[in-house]
Amino acid sequence: MEFITGIEEKEVLELSDLFKEGMPGKRVKVNGAVHAIRDMGTVAFVILRKRDGLVQCVYEEGATNFNLKDLKEAATVEVTGTLAESEKAPEGIEIRLEEITVLSEPAEPLPLPIAKWKLNTSLEAKLNYRPISLRNVRERAKFRIQEGIVRGFRDFLYGEGFTEIHTPKIGAKSAEGGANLFKLEYFHRPAILQQSPQFYKQMMVGVFDRVFETAPVFRAEKHNTKRHLNEYTSLDFEMGYIEGFEDIMAMETGFLQYAMKLLETEYAKELKILNIVLPKTDKIPAVRFDEIKRLVAEKYNRKIKNPFDLEPEEEILISRYAKEEWDADFVFVTHYPSKKRPFYAMDDPADPTFTLSFDLLFKGMEITTGGQRIHDYNALLEKMASRGMTEEGMEQYLSAFKYGMPPHGGLGIGMERLTMKLMDEDNVREATLFPRDLSRLEP
Amino acid sequence: MEFITGIEEKEVLELSDLFKEGMPGKRVKVNGAVHAIRDMGTVAFVILRKRDGLVQCVYEEGATNFNLKDLKEAATVEVTGTLAESEKAPEGIEIRLEEITVLSEPAEPLPLPIAKWKLNTSLEAKLNYRPISLRNVRERAKFRIQEGIVRGFRDFLYGEGFTEIHTPKIGAKSAEGGANLFKLEYFHRPAILQQSPQFYKQMMVGVFDRVFETAPVFRAEKHNTKRHLNEYTSLDFEMGYIEGFEDIMAMETGFLQYAMKLLETEYAKELKILNIVLPKTDKIPAVRFDEIKRLVAEKYNRKIKNPFDLEPEEEILISRYAKEEWDADFVFVTHYPSKKRPFYAMDDPADPTFTLSFDLLFKGMEITTGGQRIHDYNALLEKMASRGMTEEGMEQYLSAFKYGMPPHGGLGIGMERLTMKLMDEDNVREATLFPRDLSRLEP
Repeated sequence: MEFITGIEEKEVLELSDLFKEGMPGKRVKVNGAVHAIRDMGTVAFVILRKRDGLVQCVYEEGATNFNLKDLKEAATVEVTGTLAESEKAPEGIEIRLEEITVLSEPAEPLPLPIAKWKLNTSLEAKLNYRPISLRNVRERAKFRIQEGIVRGFRDFLYGEGFTEIHTPKIGAKSAEGGANLFKLEYFHRPAILQQSPQFYKQMMVGVFDRVFETAPVFRAEKHNTKRHLNEYTSLDFEMGYIEGFEDIMAMETGFLQYAMKLLETEYAKELKILNIVLPKTDKIPAVRFDEIKRLVAEKYNRKIKNPFDLEPEEEILISRYAKEEWDADFVFVTHYPSKKRPFYAMDDPADPTFTLSFDLLFKGMEITTGGQRIHDYNALLEKMASRGMTEEGMEQYLSAFKYGMPPHGGLGIGMERLTMKLMDEDNVREATLFPRDLSRLEP
Repeated sequence: MEFITGIEEKEVLELSDLFKEGMPGKRVKVNGAVHAIRDMGTVAFVILRKRDGLVQCVYEEGATNFNLKDLKEAATVEVTGTLAESEKAPEGIEIRLEEITVLSEPAEPLPLPIAKWKLNTSLEAKLNYRPISLRNVRERAKFRIQEGIVRGFRDFLYGEGFTEIHTPKIGAKSAEGGANLFKLEYFHRPAILQQSPQFYKQMMVGVFDRVFETAPVFRAEKHNTKRHLNEYTSLDFEMGYIEGFEDIMAMETGFLQYAMKLLETEYAKELKILNIVLPKTDKIPAVRFDEIKRLVAEKYNRKIKNPFDLEPEEEILISRYAKEEWDADFVFVTHYPSKKRPFYAMDDPADPTFTLSFDLLFKGMEITTGGQRIHDYNALLEKMASRGMTEEGMEQYLSAFKYGMPPHGGLGIGMERLTMKLMDEDNVREATLFPRDLSRLEP
């Protein structure tokens, strides 16, 4: 028996340690993956990849206990050497190698030139070699940015009194949805994968007032576009005691402000690697659905084809309008037509053909759908009846309302879409570690 | 068009505002759910339930613009009144009601006495009325504790340089696992739900060195016990450049220390409600599988039936032993037999019939399985061949090793089990918002 007492300081240093004052001149031990070897003849540069960046090591024949020919790219090593300041080194410091110990070796040379600054490979190839292509410094930085977004979402909401929940992804078939649900067998009973935590988070508003979840959702949609995934991570929240659906937009704006600040302070390195200019979030325009449709039609000389929905092209024009007229990258489009919203959306008392709901567009793409929900039991039953829905399979959901629910609303944010647009990528798969689409079930 | 500028201060106060200095005597506006009405004749107590606790309101006939008879339990209201200090009020303050505005009303009286301190209802009834039973203050506190655990996991690991990842839950069928996988149809192709993010987090060690994920996993096991769920939340991490599997146990110990501290500081209210005494985590004993089996057999006069596995009864005795001999609630059991561990577990070079792996037991139950993994491509292929496994469907996983992987290991923690044991509950469903088991597919 021995006691484990927690983490201890290691002799092996992290990248951040190397940049501390007084370090140059010291003998240091560092580990990492051999990202690239640049052999210049009598001297060679061995670039180590660590989790927080690259570090240049200098190999001089005779000075090291190791023959450079025995070192392979993609090996992992532990090196010892003297830290030196160097104007020529990319980060201003380098390690003059004395010892190299190989921790592991690859069995074959890398199939992709991951040490290049930009991985000039097709998206298809990047996805086929996902565990390898992500070793490229720019590729992996995208998912550090994604981490920052999700972290910001949670931290902001914790601070606003939200409780984090974990709701089941396997469920019984219900009267809602249908065609877009993945079906599975659950111990000889038909079951589905949840397309959203909607019902669960609403039920939990009756318990915690304010809840959020960051979890996968599943949509069996046969879309094959640059903006659709069949499994994605949804950032969901739902809040009670709202005075109007503007409270929800205000909360989302607060999140975006918080997240951009977090990226600026904690993910500056990755923002620089990816050349990201963060969008302004101090004020986000909110404009009615019918109004912005008209404004866009007028300004860009366009006919309104479908008064009840936005076409992708219209979303792009709305964002263009918001940029040109209000200098805004984000724009809330409010009061969507009732017939295009789910049964639980609250209709606008002033005109029940519209709802107290909104989408948030970011650089031409919808990244959020949200709004106020019906909280009165009888109103909910009436709305369902008016749509010809039965209560089958929804008894538990409805019971939350039967036994009292506060006025409430919420939203869902597509994590991959938000990341994608922040990086100005044009395919959502660029912002997905392992995308699931019509053709892609692995890796 | 209007601009949304973020969250603004509201006139309606939160519970924490009421406890600020100088507040007694002030006129306050508060909202909440009517948790209980206690009518004493000329005076009545209206207990409001808010997300962070209860607040007592005093209704006096004539002083309020409202007839008490029109107020229903489970209604949600906004009240105005004068805040007063009161020795008799549970929290030392109360609101003397002047105005009540009903925000929403229930359609029927509550089916459970949720205002009781302890909800003396069967687990079955609690689960059948989940959205209602969780409104009980003790029931919901359990899931605030659960939030603290998950939050602690993430915050600790962010600080240790881990990157959060989101990996797909739908996957292709592979040579590993089989019987315990839920199957589904994915656009006319056979697919499964992942029983663990194991392969993905290992692949990502080659990218980020250290990764974690907090997400659902799915197990089609036909267990019907107090400790099994068919869907649960797994807290997973995987770390590269380890010097031995002790590094993983040290990291888990560090997490537990961090999480207990977080609960102590940020969730003191819930700890008190649930009467939780936090376990000691300053040092956790680690003892070999064969050694502890022998020690337990000796001390408790028990025959070793199966030398390769632990029976549930043995887990209980090991924890009893650890408590009696080392005053420990947690105990690491190390060096599990190789034949009981998955193919990717690293065998102990000193004796390859055992592995460099461990379980963490907490008060008699396994809450973690972890260990060092094989990182060498050829060693991995050999191990698979020795088990008669094919490489089919594992090409991507194996490619990560083919192109170089550092020594690494990791673990998975069952969120619900850890929560359950922390609260001294005896059924994992008590620590699950919406459990999925052999018979339960809703709510």
